Amino acid sequence: MDFNVLNEGHIRDLKSIVEPKRLSTGESCLELHAKDQSQHPGTRPEVVIWPCDRDEVSEILKYANKKELPVTGWGSGTSLEGNPIPVRRGLVLDFSQMDRILDIREQDFQADVEPGVVYHDLNEKLRLRGLFFPPDPGAGATIGGMIANNASGTRTVRYGSTRANILRLTVVLAGGEIMQIGSRASKSSSGYDLINLFVGSEGTLGIVVEATVRLRGVSEEFSAAIATFKSVETAGKAVFEVMRSGLDPASVEILAPECIALINKEKGLGLSVSPTLFMEFHGPARKQLEDTMKMAHEICMSVSCREFRAGIDRKDRDDFLKARHEFAEMIMRNHPGRSHIGIDVAVPISAYPKIISLARKESNNAGIPGYTFGHAGDGNLHLVFMGKTGDRKEWGIIDGINQRIVEEALALGGTATGEHGVGIGKRKFMEAEHGISLKWMKRIKDLFDPKGILNPGKIFP
Amino acid sequence: MDFNVLNEGHIRDLKSIVEPKRLSTGESCLELHAKDQSQHPGTRPEVVIWPCDRDEVSEILKYANKKELPVTGWGSGTSLEGNPIPVRRGLVLDFSQMDRILDIREQDFQADVEPGVVYHDLNEKLRLRGLFFPPDPGAGATIGGMIANNASGTRTVRYGSTRANILRLTVVLAGGEIMQIGSRASKSSSGYDLINLFVGSEGTLGIVVEATVRLRGVSEEFSAAIATFKSVETAGKAVFEVMRSGLDPASVEILAPECIALINKEKGLGLSVSPTLFMEFHGPARKQLEDTMKMAHEICMSVSCREFRAGIDRKDRDDFLKARHEFAEMIMRNHPGRSHIGIDVAVPISAYPKIISLARKESNNAGIPGYTFGHAGDGNLHLVFMGKTGDRKEWGIIDGINQRIVEEALALGGTATGEHGVGIGKRKFMEAEHGISLKWMKRIKDLFDPKGILNPGKIFP
Repeated sequence: MDFNVLNEGHIRDLKSIVEPKRLSTGESCLELHAKDQSQHPGTRPEVVIWPCDRDEVSEILKYANKKELPVTGWGSGTSLEGNPIPVRRGLVLDFSQMDRILDIREQDFQADVEPGVVYHDLNEKLRLRGLFFPPDPGAGATIGGMIANNASGTRTVRYGSTRANILRLTVVLAGGEIMQIGSRASKSSSGYDLINLFVGSEGTLGIVVEATVRLRGVSEEFSAAIATFKSVETAGKAVFEVMRSGLDPASVEILAPECIALINKEKGLGLSVSPTLFMEFHGPARKQLEDTMKMAHEICMSVSCREFRAGIDRKDRDDFLKARHEFAEMIMRNHPGRSHIGIDVAVPISAYPKIISLARKESNNAGIPGYTFGHAGDGNLHLVFMGKTGDRKEWGIIDGINQRIVEEALALGGTATGEHGVGIGKRKFMEAEHGISLKWMKRIKDLFDPKGILNPGKIFP
Repeated sequence: MDFNVLNEGHIRDLKSIVEPKRLSTGESCLELHAKDQSQHPGTRPEVVIWPCDRDEVSEILKYANKKELPVTGWGSGTSLEGNPIPVRRGLVLDFSQMDRILDIREQDFQADVEPGVVYHDLNEKLRLRGLFFPPDPGAGATIGGMIANNASGTRTVRYGSTRANILRLTVVLAGGEIMQIGSRASKSSSGYDLINLFVGSEGTLGIVVEATVRLRGVSEEFSAAIATFKSVETAGKAVFEVMRSGLDPASVEILAPECIALINKEKGLGLSVSPTLFMEFHGPARKQLEDTMKMAHEICMSVSCREFRAGIDRKDRDDFLKARHEFAEMIMRNHPGRSHIGIDVAVPISAYPKIISLARKESNNAGIPGYTFGHAGDGNLHLVFMGKTGDRKEWGIIDGINQRIVEEALALGGTATGEHGVGIGKRKFMEAEHGISLKWMKRIKDLFDPKGILNPGKIFP
């Protein structure tokens, strides 16, 4: 795809669409929108625009489409696969000024939000009403970014990923058309499901300007435990056993010893530096949760758990989850001069012990700082490496490991990306994962965005 | 779209693809595949074929596409909106010989099935292993039919509709291409979600030849109650209050007195002929369910419940649910000479009392046998009328009511069809519900099926 280079005339035209103060070509601004948190090299856009409503987004897209200028949406830049890097330059639309919570309908467990709303801010507001929006990604993601990547996290094992919690979207298409999809009913059999087509499409099919999200009631009671094991592999087996027991945990997180050591160092939690499972259960009644925890304990003991600490209180739970959320950034901070890659596969739960074993073997042999952890209850594994920036040998080793782990995940019936999206980094695996259906995805892309202006260079190899 | 009329040459060619005994042009066979359970007039296909594997389906579609012959998939013919009526004639593919359960992976809570597997048969098999496939439609639907219509039912309020329980599909496209989509991982952010595009597309985008479905563990304990109210409207209010309490019921069914009277007559259950809610809760512990039921009781009393009978035992619960499943057929059986229309809307739960009120008003004024009931926990309302077959005046009245109820549901942010699909009957509401997104649905249809051979005459006005 050939795009036009932005010139003075374009800037002038764009300034007639948005107030000039909400448009910048300043170097520092461009630099701030050149790169997400991944290791992928940044590319500066030619202009950054902060739209303030759907009509502006529509006008901008109409113009960009006519002039064949690339347009990439920008949430908070916390993606991990280069998803919002404007590799073909052009326009970046930063949604930080479209951050209104438009309506909270407690009675329907729904909220209408703009894409720039930060996930944690929304939940802070909802907490006072006893509600929450469940998909719980790490980092300070925006709702728009979560929708783009179908983000998920520590609560997904029980409440589903972003996909499962979106009812209605307003989307601006490449040509500027504003389209509303979905309904406020909790179920529907009315025509093709376009909601799920847009969720996870990484801004390549359209730009979300409003979303109706599904909320849940904050559970009255919880119980949490931290279990340690002699090896990460054994902890992986415990995950499988807990999941197949049907105990319906609200989270099951796995962390290898190097992760716990780092969390202790940064947060002073004083946890035992061992292969660790964090488990949480939600429910309306204390007694029932205690019974559930007793069963979880027995299951863990049966796969030679070393220590099982139940009865974690609210503060300790919150501290742990906060550390877990900040973990990716913690790693980055602790390895100056190195860049971050997060291998992110998901497999059927029975295959979790296998993929964990492979990850440990690879990590132990790599000779590069690596961290094994994951949303284990979803069969989601993360292996983060911090490779020396620009060191071709180290990055060659890391690429080889990434390749082998993804290939194994696919062979086990899993997916190349559990939650980070395809972005730039996972494009090379798309053909192996999707076969001929990738061709149909591309045709859908061409249908909605014939000039390819929306986030070019992503998803497709 | 102009299609070709099937001739002797076509039949000969088709007989070279499938064994002749699995193809029929016999009048009685054609008649059996002319009509579902709706009031829509039947149309006989020109030939019925019973394929036995995906390769046959592929060959048949390749041929039909080349020769421009319509192809409609057929499960068990229990749809309620004319979804599988071959209105443009051509080929009907009956999947009753592709009814193998290919694999049950207990450890992953997954099963691989062919489209002709009957829902109840699958759950019968799974019961012995303590598992079940949750979307619980009435009638003897097949998995293929459930996927086509995104079917749901009494358990959807807790476990989701068919959509939420499909992980992977093998689909044959109009040109005969066999495409696999989705993965066996419980979550993924890998490329566009084609699974949800095919689920609910009523066989207009492709033909499903294999599905990986998500299973759940049968709950160890349940508690069920039947509550009666002074009016259906009050029962509707109780639904809203129960749902917003966050008690997470496994079903909440509403039935107007005329429904209870019919169930008593047919099944001898001896229930009080009153506006009724049936509620069920699932959980691992008896005690917790008793507490939950106590809260449900209090909620119902607060909206002037007349009688609240908790502690329904397993047999009574099963009898009630069996009656509920057979209810549509019960109605039809009891009104010879009349035809069935099931108005099927869903609204946000806070609007449920409103839509219930409207349904009662309309039903009371109609002067035509009508039954108000629904999967209330989903905000799903059914109003079934049995109109005199061929009586234009009665059907004029019914059409007016259908129109008004759907319009009100849409005005309330809901959907024209909660679970029956669009088929023939709901096409006229698609523009009002979807606006310009309907145009994009049609473009997706044209992309996947440029000659329009797959189930023509459905979904689009």
